[in-house]
Amino acid sequence: MKERIIIGDALSIEPSVLNNEKIKGVKKRILIGSVLKAPNFYMRLFVVAPGGYSPYHNHNWEHEVYVIKGQGKVITENKELEITDNNYVFVPPNVKHQFKNTGENELHFICVIPSTADEE
Amino acid sequence: MKERIIIGDALSIEPSVLNNEKIKGVKKRILIGSVLKAPNFYMRLFVVAPGGYSPYHNHNWEHEVYVIKGQGKVITENKELEITDNNYVFVPPNVKHQFKNTGENELHFICVIPSTADEE
Repeated sequence: MKERIIIGDALSIEPSVLNNEKIKGVKKRILIGSVLKAPNFYMRLFVVAPGGYSPYHNHNWEHEVYVIKGQGKVITENKELEITDNNYVFVPPNVKHQFKNTGENELHFICVIPSTADEE
Repeated sequence: MKERIIIGDALSIEPSVLNNEKIKGVKKRILIGSVLKAPNFYMRLFVVAPGGYSPYHNHNWEHEVYVIKGQGKVITENKELEITDNNYVFVPPNVKHQFKNTGENELHFICVIPSTADEE
């Protein structure tokens, strides 16, 4: 069968709700991943509640992020960088990072990772 | 030198303005590309004016698109699919496609391509 274009409403996807000792108030949706046979990279949508955060960690693959809306910070080893609507963020491989929502509303961002990553 | 996290305001980047016989009213900004040494894929922001469109074409690399805002259509070989805010679009390799702005305001979308593509 010929491959075809797939279109969907990101916010209609049922999210994984992530809350543990390292991550708080994060809803993750895989928009374009292995299910769609994406060959090289996967696109995910993260919605972080006010006060929520992703894990502070590093790994040997990059992130390419686009902030759709909200206010937050990227925590690195030696500083905190502010992010807001229409900011892009390139996290190179092996660099420590954490995304925090410092605003009063949800923080929405797209995060793209290579399909070779140990996550999806 | 250790690689570091790069953050920028997408709309502050000077765009390439694309207008020719195949493409109309398109502003293209490379957010994360070869200049930042992105290893596997590149993130671009496209802003399409009302009535504007990308070329109707195909190529052997995929697109992963996220619509930030606006109203439009994806034209394929046998149908037209509507897109709007928070839609994701997966265009597999070798599938014909065109993005058109059918709304009254600008159409903004992120488009990610592999770094092996013959474009950036």
